[in-house]
Amino acid sequence: MPKIAREIHLVKRPTGLPGPDSFRLAERQLAEPVSGQLLVRNQWISVDPYMRGRMTEKKSFIPPFALNEVMEGAAVGIVEESRDPAFKPGDTVSHFAGWRDLALIDAAGAAVVDPAFPLQAYLGPLGFPGLAAYAGFLRLGEPRPGETVFVSAAAGAVGSLVAQIARIKGNHVIASAGSPDKIDWLLKEAGVDQVINYKTEKDITAALAKAAPRGIDIYFDNVGGDHLEAAIANANDFARFTLCGMIAQYNGEPIGPRNIYAVIEKSLKLQGFIASNHLDLWPDFQRDMKQWITDGRIKWKETVVEGLENSPQAFLDIFAGANAGKMLVKLG
Amino acid sequence: MPKIAREIHLVKRPTGLPGPDSFRLAERQLAEPVSGQLLVRNQWISVDPYMRGRMTEKKSFIPPFALNEVMEGAAVGIVEESRDPAFKPGDTVSHFAGWRDLALIDAAGAAVVDPAFPLQAYLGPLGFPGLAAYAGFLRLGEPRPGETVFVSAAAGAVGSLVAQIARIKGNHVIASAGSPDKIDWLLKEAGVDQVINYKTEKDITAALAKAAPRGIDIYFDNVGGDHLEAAIANANDFARFTLCGMIAQYNGEPIGPRNIYAVIEKSLKLQGFIASNHLDLWPDFQRDMKQWITDGRIKWKETVVEGLENSPQAFLDIFAGANAGKMLVKLG
Repeated sequence: MPKIAREIHLVKRPTGLPGPDSFRLAERQLAEPVSGQLLVRNQWISVDPYMRGRMTEKKSFIPPFALNEVMEGAAVGIVEESRDPAFKPGDTVSHFAGWRDLALIDAAGAAVVDPAFPLQAYLGPLGFPGLAAYAGFLRLGEPRPGETVFVSAAAGAVGSLVAQIARIKGNHVIASAGSPDKIDWLLKEAGVDQVINYKTEKDITAALAKAAPRGIDIYFDNVGGDHLEAAIANANDFARFTLCGMIAQYNGEPIGPRNIYAVIEKSLKLQGFIASNHLDLWPDFQRDMKQWITDGRIKWKETVVEGLENSPQAFLDIFAGANAGKMLVKLG
Repeated sequence: MPKIAREIHLVKRPTGLPGPDSFRLAERQLAEPVSGQLLVRNQWISVDPYMRGRMTEKKSFIPPFALNEVMEGAAVGIVEESRDPAFKPGDTVSHFAGWRDLALIDAAGAAVVDPAFPLQAYLGPLGFPGLAAYAGFLRLGEPRPGETVFVSAAAGAVGSLVAQIARIKGNHVIASAGSPDKIDWLLKEAGVDQVINYKTEKDITAALAKAAPRGIDIYFDNVGGDHLEAAIANANDFARFTLCGMIAQYNGEPIGPRNIYAVIEKSLKLQGFIASNHLDLWPDFQRDMKQWITDGRIKWKETVVEGLENSPQAFLDIFAGANAGKMLVKLG
């Protein structure tokens, strides 16, 4: 019996903030799996800010999405059919054929995950957002105990993990977030020391100066724009900046930090990075993160949207800051 | 008999491009040297772009110049009187009491230099510009043979040394400079592979793309502004940027690189630095640079202005690009 997959296609390359008209729900009849393939029923799919970059034509670290084709992204699902000896029906796997309910994939692109943890954790703390936080903060931030760390979009999927890893490592953590709920969670659950509400503060630089009178030593950037300028302005000499995302400028006129000369004056290091270039840390990351989760030292928030048809709106809502923690789409 | 020093004082903090009215020639009667002091007759004094930063009130890596006081800067001179056993009259010393003809200084701030090399070399290839090039390129640029290096203001004091060290290390070198004379010197004397004339090229990004079709791996920034944007636009993944100076924006409205998001996409490292934070390399630097000079592998250009009274104009001329190589003021 032919299998029908429901998929989200990109039908128009957005300029500026994308709208729902860039996406279309489509159906596709799948072939039977051949040797080395799996048929996977997705349970959770991921929508992430970086996907905005793939919606343009511009070459980036990852190729653009094709027009009128299904998009890609992280997903976890259950194997329905396997033509690879390493997988069997019922296995839970993570893979990259998201934005669809049923995926015919090469087994080489799938990994069995331990169902002792919630499946959707493999799209968050135990997935690429977790690796981004772990590698970006520990390897590139080079934290020393007692240093002051500033994390932007700290209630987001990556930022919330960075904030908590920094606390585990004995750092003083200043976070930025955009709603009372998020701030409350950061202070009470994630244990950060101070939070700046970037939506009510007119001047992030002044707010950070007040929160960090002795300056910051590490900045983990998920926002860019005024947050990056504020971090440069308040950086101590030899501070390390991990540039992980710049959600403030994915959809508008790009803005460079006007105080970039201070990068010289203060001997700052600004290091851009992509989590997938740090896969050598994967075993350490999985070991540490699983331990921290088990010990209750890492918590996470999720914003769950149900139904594949709602995944474009879930993606769009990220840019309005509607998500607390990881934005997830639950299927089935 | 009382000694009279002639000095250049800062009398007005400039806004924008400084003019001659910010400076005044003054005289001062010096006291007799006491124990631990030297009286030094300066032979050469240095005027450098970074001094623009010290003319403002803003705190930086080095304190602002005081108003209505003599400025400071690198200088070399001959000891006339010594009240320190480590120095004797006739010694040639480098020190930091520039912008004056006669200097009463603490012996701790002076170092005897080998007169086998031209004295003014200690303000250039054997001084801080040399250390900036050596440490900034070799330590922070992490060059590997065969990589492509872009150097801005490559006919300047630091840039010309970076370009030649890069050639010595087996790199392909693309330089930017602003006059036919400078370009000629870079191609024929310094041995760089290609030069971009930034005064005739309207679009530095396009010019660099043409000069470096396979992209750049290292950028040594002395300019900032459009050069920094061009380097980001043409960088290969994992390129290293040493940010040493940003002469394009010392006097005007600061501009940040609008394409800074590409720092993430390409996993670039932007490292700001101050040569004085790399003094641990001083012995290696002196050994290598003296050898390279002796072997004729490092050449340098000088622009010499005579007379202390002309030092403010010499300083101002740097911002018009009037100097080829190190701008020097010769006294006596």
